[in-house]
Parts: sequence; structure tokens; C-alpha cells
Amino acid sequence: MDANFFKHLIVPATTKIVMLVMDGLGGLPLQPGGKTELETAHTPNLDSLAERSSLGLSIPVAPGITPGSGPGHLALFGYDPLRYEIGRGAMEALGVDFELGPDDLAARGNFCTIDADGCISDRRAGRLSTELSTQLLQKLAQITLPGAELFIRPVKEHRFAFILRAPGLADALSETDPQKTAVPPLRLLALDPYAEKTALLVNQFLAQAQLILAGCHPANMVLLRGFAKLPVLPTFYEKYGLHPAAIAVNGMYRGVARLVGMQVLPLSGSSLQDEFDALHANWQDFDFFYLHVKKTDTYGELGDFTGKVMAIEEVDAMFPSLLALHPDVTIVCGDHSSPAVLRSHSWHPVPLLLFSRYVRPDGISEFGESACRQGSLGTLPAVQIMPLALANAMRIAKYGA
Amino acid sequence: MDANFFKHLIVPATTKIVMLVMDGLGGLPLQPGGKTELETAHTPNLDSLAERSSLGLSIPVAPGITPGSGPGHLALFGYDPLRYEIGRGAMEALGVDFELGPDDLAARGNFCTIDADGCISDRRAGRLSTELSTQLLQKLAQITLPGAELFIRPVKEHRFAFILRAPGLADALSETDPQKTAVPPLRLLALDPYAEKTALLVNQFLAQAQLILAGCHPANMVLLRGFAKLPVLPTFYEKYGLHPAAIAVNGMYRGVARLVGMQVLPLSGSSLQDEFDALHANWQDFDFFYLHVKKTDTYGELGDFTGKVMAIEEVDAMFPSLLALHPDVTIVCGDHSSPAVLRSHSWHPVPLLLFSRYVRPDGISEFGESACRQGSLGTLPAVQIMPLALANAMRIAKYGA
Repeated sequence: MDANFFKHLIVPATTKIVMLVMDGLGGLPLQPGGKTELETAHTPNLDSLAERSSLGLSIPVAPGITPGSGPGHLALFGYDPLRYEIGRGAMEALGVDFELGPDDLAARGNFCTIDADGCISDRRAGRLSTELSTQLLQKLAQITLPGAELFIRPVKEHRFAFILRAPGLADALSETDPQKTAVPPLRLLALDPYAEKTALLVNQFLAQAQLILAGCHPANMVLLRGFAKLPVLPTFYEKYGLHPAAIAVNGMYRGVARLVGMQVLPLSGSSLQDEFDALHANWQDFDFFYLHVKKTDTYGELGDFTGKVMAIEEVDAMFPSLLALHPDVTIVCGDHSSPAVLRSHSWHPVPLLLFSRYVRPDGISEFGESACRQGSLGTLPAVQIMPLALANAMRIAKYGA
Repeated sequence: MDANFFKHLIVPATTKIVMLVMDGLGGLPLQPGGKTELETAHTPNLDSLAERSSLGLSIPVAPGITPGSGPGHLALFGYDPLRYEIGRGAMEALGVDFELGPDDLAARGNFCTIDADGCISDRRAGRLSTELSTQLLQKLAQITLPGAELFIRPVKEHRFAFILRAPGLADALSETDPQKTAVPPLRLLALDPYAEKTALLVNQFLAQAQLILAGCHPANMVLLRGFAKLPVLPTFYEKYGLHPAAIAVNGMYRGVARLVGMQVLPLSGSSLQDEFDALHANWQDFDFFYLHVKKTDTYGELGDFTGKVMAIEEVDAMFPSLLALHPDVTIVCGDHSSPAVLRSHSWHPVPLLLFSRYVRPDGISEFGESACRQGSLGTLPAVQIMPLALANAMRIAKYGA
């Protein structure tokens, strides 16, 4: 089913859809046979809605594939994550809330240490402090390049986001990080003829950076990798006729939302309450709301089972205020699993709840991995969530006579 | 799995398959948490067979997509409804039992009213009576066109089916209905060079129609839209080696059946009993029977929950006479859902029952949406029903050595 087929069936409506994404929602029991984080959490409000909803498990990319946040979110938004790739450099820039545009080329940067022979002795420059890194980056930001603008943003410790802005930049570039020590940084190469001008510019930057950092041991050189431009995606409005808003604290999620044409709402703070406040404050102005909860993933990646349980319970406690808005369609889902026992993202299917006046309720009064496995949505590709949401929002016309 | 792969595995057999299609079978409860139409209906015979059958839910086109009758039936017959499209004009002609052939171009026609300036004042000509419409259409049928035959059939009130027959006609045509008033009818345009001759013919018809209808206010002009030729499909015999018969009262379903090479059986009346009588009378002569029940959809679209329940009960009461024929494979299914609460077709998966001597019985003694959700067939694309039926009919050979 190609995207155009779908587009022609979209009809206007005044219905509203809320997609609540708990990052890394899916989990695993601490011990085989035990309960997952979501099953352990006391979630009376989600359980109560589950009883009147259709449940299922979503597969973000493909069975066995562990998605990054980019592909995980693109799939939830209905974009094939195998077709649209957001490169590492672009994710790094989005992560520090840099508003990447179509003329921007981004890369992951990091400080390193080189010895007198020009060979790398430490790929992370002794993990220098973010403060020191920020000072050094201000020096690098002074570098001027012909016909291009340069933006450099600190990330954490030795890491930074590198962005070059000029018309016609290309991202078919090699990397300068050899991923090992005792060898010099690699020379940046154009991987196709269209990238030669870009390679020239980046190499000019690298040459000047080396001069500027000469006396700054251990942070006396930089490495760049993951060069990427943003893919061009049809917007939510073009694809679905929706006017979407994004509520997210972290830059990466705000960036992916912007990429699909969502308006990123201002927040008065970084708490979950601030996010729900933004939902209420802007309820009249949009018909699709993406609300992102980060903590579930953070605790999962830290291996903190109890922390993740509590993060889920915090969402559950605030959930009635979302339902009080009476969305026509409510989706509770995750962009991937992040089981605390794995301390990382994982490939496991992700619990999914779809509620509207028109679902066939499964009558399962629990929101959890085992419960969702019994649900009528079955185990489905995450890209199918948006079509189902739009159908339940009465936004898809009949196909064929 | 492409169609050719499948074709080479077909083996001859003497087994018989019956596919009983209850149109718009799937439903929704009147109140959340209640029972659907099928679950409300008292269906002891279907329930009894369900216990010895495999159950499931079928998705006609794709998750979230509400199918028209054409795509819904093509999927049940095993034809990808996204690959084979039956245009609106063709459906209109099939709907009045016109036997469309490969040289025929069909369109939806309707009478309209134009004012002294030639602008449309009423797109439906005051919804004139079918009687008056039929009289006026007889005048239009006198129009002669060079090298082409013209067929015009009344549908209802202002609507009619327009069919042009000539070699080499094309359906890449614009529409003359501007879908609004106070503007003149649009001029019909060829959308590609191959359609230019066709556009010329249709425009000649329109010019003559305007002259003939000049004094017939309010029905003083016609609009044409949805130009379509029938797609060319492999027949049931070519695809499956089956000799299929269709038992259906309404023209649209008889037409779609004819399209896939089914022989449409004559009926002595339009009741369900007449349809079952035709099944018995022709049992020896075919090995595949498609039996269509329209009322379930009719009541669903009318929003008549009880009517739909009773239509299902009527089928159940007659069901033992079908089983008395001992088909090798019995399928009970629907082409889409038509919940009475929605008063329309919908995207919801459709209950499915597959019975043969060789199914693994699910042991679920109820035929309904919730019961089918528990079934071993799972939630499957409707195009997979025919391969399963053929397998159970011992008509598919082993793939590979």
C-alpha cells in the first residue's frame, strides 16, 4: 500500500487524536516467569481504559530488530523506518534542539588527543568536562569557511554536534574517526562526486581546528563521523490532513516531530505535569497530539527496574487528566522496548492500547505485555497504528465502490 | 507470493467448496461492552459448526481501510484489491446487472438542472422520479454515435448507468460533474492521448443530450463521472482450476463474480430460499459456489441493529440445508463490516469460519467477533482465505521437493 493510495482516502474531520508515547515502554521480568516493569506497575487508570480498548503489541521495524529512537518514532508516526533514515549526525543535532534545515549537514563530533606524531592516543580526550569542552568549542566556532555557515553545539563531555549550512551540501562522506588509537585521524573523503565540494569544506574546518587546538592537550584534535542531512518527509498535514502538535522535553524527540511537520509546543518546565499542562493549554488549536515520556526509557537503560515502574506509575496517575479532554482516539504506546535487565533498547514488541468509541473492546482489564498479547490488534507493525487511529477518528473514506 | 507461483501448485480434484458471504457481516455493539449483531443473533447451527471449525478475523484491504463492495469481494476471491480496481462507473453498470464486456466503457450518470446561462442550479434535477427518469433515458438512448454502441440503464431517481461500446475505448477521462452549482458542467477531457477518441465520442453524446433535453426542465442536462473499463483478471479456472458458480440477487455482486469467471446462476426469486434452492439445483455442476447474502449489509447501512440480527438468524436457520450437501470445504465470511451503529461500511476485521475434514478445530462453540478473535486463523488478510480453502480441498500440491 503506497503512501499516495492512502492520501487520497483522507477526509477532513474535527476529531482529535492523542498519542502518548512512553519511551522504551516494553520490558522483561527480572526473573523468568516474573512480571515486566509495566506489569509490576500499579496502573489502575490505564487498566481501566484497557478494558474498553483494543490491545496489541507493536513491532517498530521488523522482528528481531532493535530500533533507535528515530526509527521507533517514525514507525509510530506511520513512516516506514526502512525507507526514511535519520543519520547519526542529524540525530545528534536534533538532540541538542538544533533546528536542522534542508541546507544543513550534521555530524557527531568529539574531542580526541593526538601525540607528537599525529597519532590518536585517546579517542575521547580524557572525557574532558562539559564546561571545558564548551569553552574550546567557542574557539572552534570562530572558524570561517567560504560560502558556508558553521554551528557547533556542546553535547556532553567530549561530544558535540557539528553543523555546516550551505546550499548543495552532500552527506556521502567517510568518517575521520578510525575507531582505534595509535593511528592518525582518517582523512575525510567524498564517497561520490557530488560530495567533493562538501569534503573540501569539512577538511578545511579540520585543518583549522587542528591549528586552533594545538596547545589544548588533551583536547588537541576533533573527530567527525555520522555525516547526515535530514531526509525530506511528507508532513502530517500532507499525509493525513492533521494539524499536529508535539509535547516533548528532549531535543531528539522534538526534532523528529518537527521533521514530520509537527508544531513543537513550548513547555514551562521539564516535568510530566508541565507536559500535561501544555496538552491542556493547546487542546483547542490542534487535532493530533504526540506526548512523549522520556523517563521510562532512561530508567530502562540505567537498568533501574523500580525506577521504570515508578515512571510508569507517574504517567498512570496523571492519565485521567488526559481522558478528561475526551479525545476521540487515544493511543498509549512506546517507540521500542527498553527492559531494565538489558540496560538498553531491545527488539521486543511493545504494548499498545487503542481506544475510541468505535473499537471492539477486548475486555482485558490490564495494560501489560501478556495482556496485550491477547488483544485483538494482535502483533502488528507499528506503521499500522496511524491508519487505525485515523479510521477510528473517522478520517478515512471508503476505498472503492 | 505472486499469482503464478500459486497457479503452478494447483492440482485437479473433485472436491467442492462453498463460500457463504454475508455482506457487511462484522459489527459493533450498540453500547461499548455489549454484543455485536452477530453475537446477539441466535445462531445454533453456525455455533455448532464453529466448534468443529477454524475461526479467525479477516482484513479485506489493509488495517484501518474501509472497503467498498468491489475490493471487499475481490479480496475474498483471492485477488489483491489494491492491484485490481473496479471503477465507480463499472460498479454502477454491474449494479443494474449490465453485462460489461472488454469493449465497454461505463460511467455514473445523473440528470441535473441548468439555467438559462448554462450553469448548474441543481446537481440532481430535483431528484426526479425513477419513472420520469426512465422515460427521458429512452430519448437519450436514441442518440447515435459514429462507430460506437450506446447503452443507458436507469438506476434510481436522477441516477443512471452510461455505457459506450466500441473497440479501443479508454477510461483516462475527466468528469463533467463539477460537484457544485452555479457553474456550467465541466468539459470532458482526455487525460492521456489514447483517450482522445473516446473523449470526442462522449462529448458528442453530451452535446446531443443537451439538445434533446432542452425542454425537459428540471432534468435538462446530464452529468457523467467515474469513467471506467473493467479490469482484466485471471479467471477462477485459470487461477485455481475451479469451475465456479455465483448465487447472488444484486447486480453488483453478480457482476464482480462474472469478472472473475464465475457462472451466475439463474434464480427463481430474490429470497434467501431461492438462493439456497439454486445451490441445491446446481450442486452437481460446479465445484465452487459463492453464495451472497445482501440483507446483513442493507440493515447495517440503515442503522437497523435488530434487522441485521434477524437477517443473520435467517441465514442460520437455512444453514443446515447447505451442510446437508456435505461440501468438502465450507467458508462463512463477510466482504467487510457494516456495524449498525456506524450506518456504513467500516474497517473492522470480519468474522471468518473455515470448516473441512482437515481443519484443526478450535473448539470454540460460537460464531462471533470475540470468538473469532480467539480462533487459530488469527487476524489474516482476506486474500489468504482462498489458498486455505484450496488446501483444505486438497487442491494444492507440495511446494519444493
